[in-house]
Amino acid sequence: MGRLSLNTATCKHLSLAGCVEAALAGGLEAIGPWRDRVQEVGADQAARMIRAAGLRVSTLCRGGFLTARDQVQIGAALADNRRAIDEAATLGAPELVMVVGGLPAGFSRMGLDHTPADEADKDLAAARQRVADRIGDLVPYARERGVRLALEPMHPLFTADRGVLTTLGQALDLAADHRPEEVGVVVDTYHVWWDPEAARSIARAGAEDRICSFQICDWILPLANDPLNSRGMMGDGYIDFPALTGWVSRAGYAGDVEVEIFNEAVWDQPGATTIAQMSQRYASLVEPYL
Amino acid sequence: MGRLSLNTATCKHLSLAGCVEAALAGGLEAIGPWRDRVQEVGADQAARMIRAAGLRVSTLCRGGFLTARDQVQIGAALADNRRAIDEAATLGAPELVMVVGGLPAGFSRMGLDHTPADEADKDLAAARQRVADRIGDLVPYARERGVRLALEPMHPLFTADRGVLTTLGQALDLAADHRPEEVGVVVDTYHVWWDPEAARSIARAGAEDRICSFQICDWILPLANDPLNSRGMMGDGYIDFPALTGWVSRAGYAGDVEVEIFNEAVWDQPGATTIAQMSQRYASLVEPYL
Repeated sequence: MGRLSLNTATCKHLSLAGCVEAALAGGLEAIGPWRDRVQEVGADQAARMIRAAGLRVSTLCRGGFLTARDQVQIGAALADNRRAIDEAATLGAPELVMVVGGLPAGFSRMGLDHTPADEADKDLAAARQRVADRIGDLVPYARERGVRLALEPMHPLFTADRGVLTTLGQALDLAADHRPEEVGVVVDTYHVWWDPEAARSIARAGAEDRICSFQICDWILPLANDPLNSRGMMGDGYIDFPALTGWVSRAGYAGDVEVEIFNEAVWDQPGATTIAQMSQRYASLVEPYL
Repeated sequence: MGRLSLNTATCKHLSLAGCVEAALAGGLEAIGPWRDRVQEVGADQAARMIRAAGLRVSTLCRGGFLTARDQVQIGAALADNRRAIDEAATLGAPELVMVVGGLPAGFSRMGLDHTPADEADKDLAAARQRVADRIGDLVPYARERGVRLALEPMHPLFTADRGVLTTLGQALDLAADHRPEEVGVVVDTYHVWWDPEAARSIARAGAEDRICSFQICDWILPLANDPLNSRGMMGDGYIDFPALTGWVSRAGYAGDVEVEIFNEAVWDQPGATTIAQMSQRYASLVEPYL
């Protein structure tokens, strides 16, 4: 279990202290907190808590939402991302996962402020360019604090209202404007498994020294009412974990493997049950291929 | 409206005769029937009916489901596809749209026969190879009957249980084993809009003389309970029709533009209403960019 990490979203109903305790009890050595859990106690206290437990921080989830069009919203997004970078630095999280945001026409669904002009804006190429620009704005700040920005391409299910970055190849093209220690990519099985270029792009990500994080969960069907909560336990769905894990391993990735599951049924069970289940699935479907 | 075509799935509750009548009344010049509508009257009678109305047949939907693993099921799939090719030839449909099928692990969700071994098979690369093999099996038969196989890449939402072909680039790579008049690709806005390579792949499809069909509908959210029925009327969702249409037009496509919408609300309204709506949206969002 040495490389298995609990992303706190997997145990949504546990506090950070509860996640730390459950991770320790389950024999894990790493944890990937979301910012909401960190902010409940403050980054300093969160860092002390995790350090005292002897756990590594695999990533901090998440910065992003960078597709705003007007200067006020751009300023607000940059300010929030700088706070996220500060939190990552305080936690000793080497990577800040970036969910880049959807189309302006999707702002209302993302709970963001929006104008009628935003609602009419479906220009995907322009939104993608703004993401590249904002990443450029943030890199110097992140570099000074020793935090790498980890671009997370998202399943095309989420292009409109979550993340306009859709493939690993596209994320690598964007990252190429920056040094590997500044900007990398997340390989999340849920987001990349369908991609006919997945094997090639993962190999490329490794060769370019860009793999920040390997996150795992399964593609299950039918989708949940809120498709965001359709991520399933490894083995319960359609993803070929031995194949994907092998590609990531052969690309040279030697970091933590974070289990990040948004799923009502998983959330409703005790944290210990979830951790036991994910450890067992990891041991059979992932670890042998690392 | 000269290039606008009614795919019969858009008026699901109308018979072929009803679709033909509604298309004529709405001033359309082309129709794209599904096989169920053709089979209700038989291909000969369907052909006479459409010809008598003076309508063109834009495509026949659909062949495919080619990912079977065992010989009996492979044989059944090939036989069914040969029947579809015969029907297309009888109708004078120049193109047979191919929805290639999902993973063996998704056969139960596709309503196909399946074994426990199928249920455990999540090997995406192997499923894709079987699609290529089956297309190769069908090409000679289709060529003799003057029917082009039109590979339809599908949104990654459907990779597990509908179509393992996910991008235009991948479809063009598969088509490259055959001549352009034998195998082409469908550009369906719903399936390609999110793809960072969409502009390049559409240009490539044009340059390689592979664009068989341009199908349109919108990506709307939230998804329907059955995501297959989430296709929306152009303008109701997130797709940038002027941009996509411009790419298809500049790629040299001069054929029909088929509206294919699976949507309970659209199905529940009278066919005349649907055709008026799609004509108006086509006139404002698509036709000026063709």
